[in-house]
Amino acid sequence: MTGQTIFFKNRPRLCAAAAIAGPKECEGVLGGYVDCALEDDMFGEKTFERAERKMLLWAASRCIEKAGLTAGGVDVFLSGDLLNQIISASFSARGLGIPFLGIYGACSTMSEGYLLGGALVDGGYAETALAATGSHFASAERQYRFPLEQGTTRPPQAQWTVTGAGAALISRKGAGPALTAATVGKVVDFGVSDVNNMGAAMAPAAADTLLAHFRDTGRDPSYYDLIVTGDLGALGSRIVKDLVWEKGTDISANHVDCGEIVYDVVEEEFQGGSGAGCSAAVMNSYIYDKLTGGSGIRRVLFAATGALLSTVSSGQGESIPCIAHAVAIENTGAEKEEEDG
Amino acid sequence: MTGQTIFFKNRPRLCAAAAIAGPKECEGVLGGYVDCALEDDMFGEKTFERAERKMLLWAASRCIEKAGLTAGGVDVFLSGDLLNQIISASFSARGLGIPFLGIYGACSTMSEGYLLGGALVDGGYAETALAATGSHFASAERQYRFPLEQGTTRPPQAQWTVTGAGAALISRKGAGPALTAATVGKVVDFGVSDVNNMGAAMAPAAADTLLAHFRDTGRDPSYYDLIVTGDLGALGSRIVKDLVWEKGTDISANHVDCGEIVYDVVEEEFQGGSGAGCSAAVMNSYIYDKLTGGSGIRRVLFAATGALLSTVSSGQGESIPCIAHAVAIENTGAEKEEEDG
Repeated sequence: MTGQTIFFKNRPRLCAAAAIAGPKECEGVLGGYVDCALEDDMFGEKTFERAERKMLLWAASRCIEKAGLTAGGVDVFLSGDLLNQIISASFSARGLGIPFLGIYGACSTMSEGYLLGGALVDGGYAETALAATGSHFASAERQYRFPLEQGTTRPPQAQWTVTGAGAALISRKGAGPALTAATVGKVVDFGVSDVNNMGAAMAPAAADTLLAHFRDTGRDPSYYDLIVTGDLGALGSRIVKDLVWEKGTDISANHVDCGEIVYDVVEEEFQGGSGAGCSAAVMNSYIYDKLTGGSGIRRVLFAATGALLSTVSSGQGESIPCIAHAVAIENTGAEKEEEDG
Repeated sequence: MTGQTIFFKNRPRLCAAAAIAGPKECEGVLGGYVDCALEDDMFGEKTFERAERKMLLWAASRCIEKAGLTAGGVDVFLSGDLLNQIISASFSARGLGIPFLGIYGACSTMSEGYLLGGALVDGGYAETALAATGSHFASAERQYRFPLEQGTTRPPQAQWTVTGAGAALISRKGAGPALTAATVGKVVDFGVSDVNNMGAAMAPAAADTLLAHFRDTGRDPSYYDLIVTGDLGALGSRIVKDLVWEKGTDISANHVDCGEIVYDVVEEEFQGGSGAGCSAAVMNSYIYDKLTGGSGIRRVLFAATGALLSTVSSGQGESIPCIAHAVAIENTGAEKEEEDG
């Protein structure tokens, strides 16, 4: 480890990615890129929790299929989600029957999955690792805030939890963009205790990890075509740009936030999207497509952010500890041909 | 990966371990081995949750100290716990300031931490990794069952969540027993839905992982001096022995369960101890002492078990999906001298 950063020498590849999203989400950018655009956010289930789980299992299964594998051919499944005791992930693991490692990083779970899956594959411990996460607006509201039936008014600094899920298959073989480095985040807490203002709470953690990544790798923000944060939203995105700028680093030219782009902002979602499914769905559809297509986007730094609070910790007057893990994903045509040809 | 099992070629070592436990726990075997025997299970805090977190942070800090390090010298902290959104682990990570990866395996979290920490250290991604978890009887009762103030009667198949925490420092350098292999568990669900009968729910997962471990490694149960399960309790321990015996494997000679030995059973704890802190405290004090002392115990297979339910999943009529991860820990004097001398 150099500082907080690990380097992947064997360039484990994201050889497949899949995503699913709800009807509201698919009105935005996701609509043209996800593998499944739900018309009904209940996904034919009786409860929000079951719908969330079904989305996660669907994304995981579709990703395995796109990689040309079966569940039996996947060595390990890394997943977690926002529901208490990560039940969406655990029940999905039961359905898949793949050896399972539960992880939790709140909305940073997707990058934690890339990071740990990358290490297990790069180190030769697994040939293939599946990383996945998701979230559901209604199950998150019920658990973290208020049941929808109550009709509570949302404050203007609030974000909207994305109904969606995403999965990626990490493999030593095959084509696809490679994981080249990953920076493990520290828990950062600037004392924000407003549970409706996640963007402001998480921005310092994103800034801390991004700065650590540039320091540890010796890279400049311009090394990347895109620096993608998870779900800071509109307000949080402004804050993270300011915070790193204060430390002499300018990411304004190539920063984009999944939460900020997932909806057409300045509607009822206020600051944009959030939730583990936000960056999972955006990364594993829209961004993955850009990375593997002819868009000119070849190097992406993905830093999903997570707010590590619970209703109990907030109720007991605690502030919100946050974290961000960053993963460098690179696709260079030459390397691809050379290594896979 | 051979089947579900990974092998550690560089023999990462458990170079230090630390544990703390509550007053009730210290009446039993833990009393003579933990680094701190609490006289007050509130640990000077106002809430059970804060007491739980303080124990986890205490065990982690003490472990770092025993390894002759400071928090700044630890590359990565792997931790999780039973509370919603693993707040004990996250807040401890905030206190320690070490790059943090949140994990969740319910009561199997200790072996998941050994496994992932072992892989990160063995693969050269980290020089040192700290794995820790814990639990608190009162916070677990409040979250999963009933508040203590309600005075609910406990059924005879119930277990008692251990108030305690444990931590281990995994390093490529230094002395101590080595991690040699680890088997990643699959989620196993035999349809048990009685949330008071965790032992019966988890025993099939333990059996599944133990059998996978023996199959993948070609080892016989007799290879190990001890086969240590996490918190199956008295009933669950009988079930796991039966289940593996039905598959032609006999572990009765050397099986021991942390939950079964932690209390003097056949009291109010009924089936014994449970909780993430159960195996964490027993492994990182009593068993670690046996492994490093002159007891003749040199090879231990540690398979902590976890019940991956939530109050919501149970309330929605789901059965209890369970998991167990197994880690082989070996200490041979000759190797130790040879490699460290």
